[in-house]
Amino acid sequence: MASLDDLSNLSLFLNAPLDLSFDELPKPVLQDDHDVLVGINFTGICGSDIHYWQCGKIGHFQLKGRMVLGHESVGTVLAAGSKVTSLKRGDRVALEPGFPCRRCTSCLAGKYNLCEDMQFAATPPHHGTLTGVFSAPADFCYRLPDSVSLQEGALVEPLAVAVHAVRQAQITPGLSVAVMGAGPVGLLCAAVARAYGASVVVSVDVRSARLDLARDLAATHAYLARDVGPEENAAAIRELAGLRQGVDVVIDASGAEASIRTGIQLVRMGGVYVQVGMGRDDCNFPIMALCLKEVTVRGSFRYGPGDYDLAIHLVASGQVPVKKLISRVVAFDQAKEAFDLAAKGDLIKIIIAGPNEGQGVLAK
Amino acid sequence: MASLDDLSNLSLFLNAPLDLSFDELPKPVLQDDHDVLVGINFTGICGSDIHYWQCGKIGHFQLKGRMVLGHESVGTVLAAGSKVTSLKRGDRVALEPGFPCRRCTSCLAGKYNLCEDMQFAATPPHHGTLTGVFSAPADFCYRLPDSVSLQEGALVEPLAVAVHAVRQAQITPGLSVAVMGAGPVGLLCAAVARAYGASVVVSVDVRSARLDLARDLAATHAYLARDVGPEENAAAIRELAGLRQGVDVVIDASGAEASIRTGIQLVRMGGVYVQVGMGRDDCNFPIMALCLKEVTVRGSFRYGPGDYDLAIHLVASGQVPVKKLISRVVAFDQAKEAFDLAAKGDLIKIIIAGPNEGQGVLAK
Amino acid sequence: MASLDDLSNLSLFLNAPLDLSFDELPKPVLQDDHDVLVGINFTGICGSDIHYWQCGKIGHFQLKGRMVLGHESVGTVLAAGSKVTSLKRGDRVALEPGFPCRRCTSCLAGKYNLCEDMQFAATPPHHGTLTGVFSAPADFCYRLPDSVSLQEGALVEPLAVAVHAVRQAQITPGLSVAVMGAGPVGLLCAAVARAYGASVVVSVDVRSARLDLARDLAATHAYLARDVGPEENAAAIRELAGLRQGVDVVIDASGAEASIRTGIQLVRMGGVYVQVGMGRDDCNFPIMALCLKEVTVRGSFRYGPGDYDLAIHLVASGQVPVKKLISRVVAFDQAKEAFDLAAKGDLIKIIIAGPNEGQGVLAK
Amino acid sequence: MASLDDLSNLSLFLNAPLDLSFDELPKPVLQDDHDVLVGINFTGICGSDIHYWQCGKIGHFQLKGRMVLGHESVGTVLAAGSKVTSLKRGDRVALEPGFPCRRCTSCLAGKYNLCEDMQFAATPPHHGTLTGVFSAPADFCYRLPDSVSLQEGALVEPLAVAVHAVRQAQITPGLSVAVMGAGPVGLLCAAVARAYGASVVVSVDVRSARLDLARDLAATHAYLARDVGPEENAAAIRELAGLRQGVDVVIDASGAEASIRTGIQLVRMGGVYVQVGMGRDDCNFPIMALCLKEVTVRGSFRYGPGDYDLAIHLVASGQVPVKKLISRVVAFDQAKEAFDLAAKGDLIKIIIAGPNEGQGVLAK
Repeated sequence: MASLDDLSNLSLFLNAPLDLSFDELPKPVLQDDHDVLVGINFTGICGSDIHYWQCGKIGHFQLKGRMVLGHESVGTVLAAGSKVTSLKRGDRVALEPGFPCRRCTSCLAGKYNLCEDMQFAATPPHHGTLTGVFSAPADFCYRLPDSVSLQEGALVEPLAVAVHAVRQAQITPGLSVAVMGAGPVGLLCAAVARAYGASVVVSVDVRSARLDLARDLAATHAYLARDVGPEENAAAIRELAGLRQGVDVVIDASGAEASIRTGIQLVRMGGVYVQVGMGRDDCNFPIMALCLKEVTVRGSFRYGPGDYDLAIHLVASGQVPVKKLISRVVAFDQAKEAFDLAAKGDLIKIIIAGPNEGQGVLAK
Repeated sequence: MASLDDLSNLSLFLNAPLDLSFDELPKPVLQDDHDVLVGINFTGICGSDIHYWQCGKIGHFQLKGRMVLGHESVGTVLAAGSKVTSLKRGDRVALEPGFPCRRCTSCLAGKYNLCEDMQFAATPPHHGTLTGVFSAPADFCYRLPDSVSLQEGALVEPLAVAVHAVRQAQITPGLSVAVMGAGPVGLLCAAVARAYGASVVVSVDVRSARLDLARDLAATHAYLARDVGPEENAAAIRELAGLRQGVDVVIDASGAEASIRTGIQLVRMGGVYVQVGMGRDDCNFPIMALCLKEVTVRGSFRYGPGDYDLAIHLVASGQVPVKKLISRVVAFDQAKEAFDLAAKGDLIKIIIAGPNEGQGVLAK
Repeated sequence: MASLDDLSNLSLFLNAPLDLSFDELPKPVLQDDHDVLVGINFTGICGSDIHYWQCGKIGHFQLKGRMVLGHESVGTVLAAGSKVTSLKRGDRVALEPGFPCRRCTSCLAGKYNLCEDMQFAATPPHHGTLTGVFSAPADFCYRLPDSVSLQEGALVEPLAVAVHAVRQAQITPGLSVAVMGAGPVGLLCAAVARAYGASVVVSVDVRSARLDLARDLAATHAYLARDVGPEENAAAIRELAGLRQGVDVVIDASGAEASIRTGIQLVRMGGVYVQVGMGRDDCNFPIMALCLKEVTVRGSFRYGPGDYDLAIHLVASGQVPVKKLISRVVAFDQAKEAFDLAAKGDLIKIIIAGPNEGQGVLAK
Repeated sequence: MASLDDLSNLSLFLNAPLDLSFDELPKPVLQDDHDVLVGINFTGICGSDIHYWQCGKIGHFQLKGRMVLGHESVGTVLAAGSKVTSLKRGDRVALEPGFPCRRCTSCLAGKYNLCEDMQFAATPPHHGTLTGVFSAPADFCYRLPDSVSLQEGALVEPLAVAVHAVRQAQITPGLSVAVMGAGPVGLLCAAVARAYGASVVVSVDVRSARLDLARDLAATHAYLARDVGPEENAAAIRELAGLRQGVDVVIDASGAEASIRTGIQLVRMGGVYVQVGMGRDDCNFPIMALCLKEVTVRGSFRYGPGDYDLAIHLVASGQVPVKKLISRVVAFDQAKEAFDLAAKGDLIKIIIAGPNEGQGVLAK
């Protein structure tokens, strides 16, 4: 294993909307005894990376200076602080890319994803992980079991998003679930819902190719949403799944108004609806149906305590075959082309190798 | 106490929208060994009575034949079936006016308010309680303690609606609560929230007279909503209550889009929002704020197990002075005029005496 | 399908401790429009049947007059009341053998297993199901899918006990579980825990043959309890399962003091312990360990809303292969010998055919 | 306000069982940017201080070297680290005396009281707060509102223990509660249960003087436990409180076997029992009653997120008049005599002034 000095820290910067460049970032050093330095092996491209690239902002997060993109990463421990006991040089780790303050009300209450002082990779002004070496607290780096490959490890981040959403939905065995949207998170929600014992999982999308993948991964039923009203689509889904009274749980992983409306119509009396997909700020929403059916609606934002652990377990146990979502793996110097490709929307997940990957310098 | 034969069963029928009449309804008889016959003493007018009177329908409930109105009632037990052990002739009771099937999934699971075969008074096609004698299962009739007057007993129904909403909100001591709307249910939600230990209760309305009553009843703060955007109203409420991070719980008892939007802006990260107020089917809703703040939204519909018991306890213990909500009490033959008056919206709660009330025939 | 008149109602009576006899019981008739008459196909022998036979009582339930034994039954619908819409003549059903009052606080709150007026088969003074024809409310008879055999259907009752215990334990994917005791309920708890996604399931027993079956059914680890102190057994189980901090959930299906003590030592800080096994009234209990570790302990008694539905789903989906628990199937006239055999404790589950089974009179 | 140099750091050391001495401890310095230095104003004597003094150990915590006692403290901020924004010099604070690691599974999950690396004052080997100046993380120091006196502030720690126990019990308005034991924690549990809206609070003890105080503080009923079996005491309490079916919630703040047994007999079907009182490791426990009644038992250990905030709110709002529990306030040089007095058990709570209190050096 090479010394830190041998490693590149070439990084993919977003300088301004639509303006990407490769530059060396000063290499991080261990600043806290509880931190580790991680050499990045692979990083998946997320919809939010694309969005920052195209628009320079998401919600109230606005690009100000230049920022390194990327946050769905797997890496290899290069060095560990003096108080780190859980990891050692050479360990392969999935990287949880948001570091909370550990001191605010949310953090102390076990809701660190709601921390107001969160430092999240590739959320302005914090640099992301499309870089060579990244510094992180050891407890946010999760050792991969031998049975999980590095490339699978790059999928742990979106899988943790799905785990969190399914936990918010409180799915238990025998329940019926509809997942609106069959992009990466929607597909993974369907797979996690199955792992939670859902007896019926209906994937809904407007793209039939994605529904094929949903069926292959996890869904018991797949529904190609039609350009009709939400009541009509909801009725067709109930019919398809044989659930006259509606489904127990709806997870919206699309963020689209038509999906949201269909989902609320679809959920049964007393059922649960989870919003994990991001879209426009506002939508026309059937608030009275929510009220009269006593639906519980929960937002799901990123991931919290235990989500990464469970995500890795689901991959290691074979319950969620994340490998099927990897559409393409490219070298670091192809990162700009990978963004162009990802923006077209035809592929599920593109993974970019780190600048030191394949150089023999990260391997044990 | 008079015999059943001496009692009037004059009833207030809604024949068609805007068409009320007084007619005798055949007097009920005990059909089930678990039932009791209740002589109605007082009945409050509910917004839904007004709505059926004006429009002939609410949501998918549509007036088909003529129907007796009213469901907020207190009465006196006149006769009890052979298996009734909890009540006896002469007992004064608050009447829970919806009778579930006891056999469906919702009923068995303790969510009888979601029963699909619910028989609810004055919800088509079931007759209501603006009548002389009403038959009900004994377990849906709750004996009033001596310290609770009959007129107070007529307020138990809307108070149970508020109790249910506050339970859906899972309020515990020390939390901050905003109640949007200061009509009868909003006022009662504020009072119940205080009884649950909320340290801050902000009532919000567009009518300052109602805010005065809110302050008098329970609210620690009152906010007169202005004709500005939801962010601006929410910011002003946070400022008023000294809650920089937002309120822990919002209960919308208004059903109005402006309130709903303000409420979602107002609630803190990880907070709870309950929709109990009824309004238009759809509204423009800040779905992304819900998602990013991981808000839990719950509908609240009518009332369920234990809600009446707690409502009566809150009145008996003096924690919720429902008497302050009674604007006027009128005789049964003034019922039509009472509907006219209620429709104007200036009064909080009008109560109509039953046709036998004051005749000495219902007293012990 | 034969008429009701052709059917035997021969029943196995417990007249007094150790005194069994076969006698005809008057055939039931439909008394309530919501009831069905069920011809019994098979009935499993439960530990409680053995206990009543040997001791004449369980806890405060004391045999007074003679009583028909049996409550783990599957049958065929022979007749249905006029208001029954969910079942029809010829339907094969698993019979939930306790009928609650539907009107008490527990029933209305969705906890009907805690009903104080429960009428439970073969709990004095109510007759059991080792009989020819049994009357039951239709909503307590659950239609079996075609993929579930009648004999498997006789295992739904103990499986529902296990489902209820696992629900009390709130198991979710990735948790570690220890099940103390590998009798029928312990084995089924292990299998249900796996279906709930437990990543580690340790079965613990003093009989190695039962541990073999546990491994075959569901357990990831099996531990032969030794005659040492609870700390030592707990330490050995932690070592075996690689769980330094203890297991997330312990389910005691043994009722034995040594198991209970080991279980509390074994569970992690903040973990959950469920008591479903029955034994002596009192035991020497490590109450301070419970306090200091903030363990949650829950009793689990029979089954409640949804438990039968889920049990049937788990059999139909192949997740719980109950067939492996059936040690022997005997004809009705061999019922006494079956009790002798069951009392020896070497077999897991013995099933007794109903008096009309195999006569061609119950088949469609 | 004096400089740090002027302050005494005289401390009360436990050198060995029954061996107390006064000695100067080296004065702490700010080691972490998030810490503050607190000048101790008052410290209450806890049963655990007495226990260490008399026995040198509690459970597996064993005195090894000498240790400063005390952990129920209130103080004044003397200096604040560079990253502290919530506090400033001169602020009066209740001190939460246990500092968790913030990185283990329990901490991240919001259960920091279960942290395995907890540094808790006066739990070996960590020094306590019967000293002059104490260093603590700013987020574990809670500013007192002006309406709360310093001496009241010294009661916030035991009140937080009671708040945590009541939260574990999930008390909501209208429930009935029995609190076994009327020492400081039991009395405070009764008061907090009332603040949570319990309609019936029965205090149970063997000392009638304490029951008088319980009545004065909060209890609606008080029961002098008799030297009879638990069933008989439980029946008498049910009779006294008019609760035929038992109480909804039992909190044991005694740790005594007789109380524990009575408590389990007393709780209703489906009720909740919380163990907060500490006593012998094991007790003879009615495990089958727990099982058959589906009681939920929870341990309660120290306090967690939000407990101090709520405790201070309950004092500030007048809901829990902690002043009534303060039996005596003594100067620091009387600390040994105070321990002798406390050990006799006749007084409720003795408070010891810090060595700098009353010298004018801690006041603003």
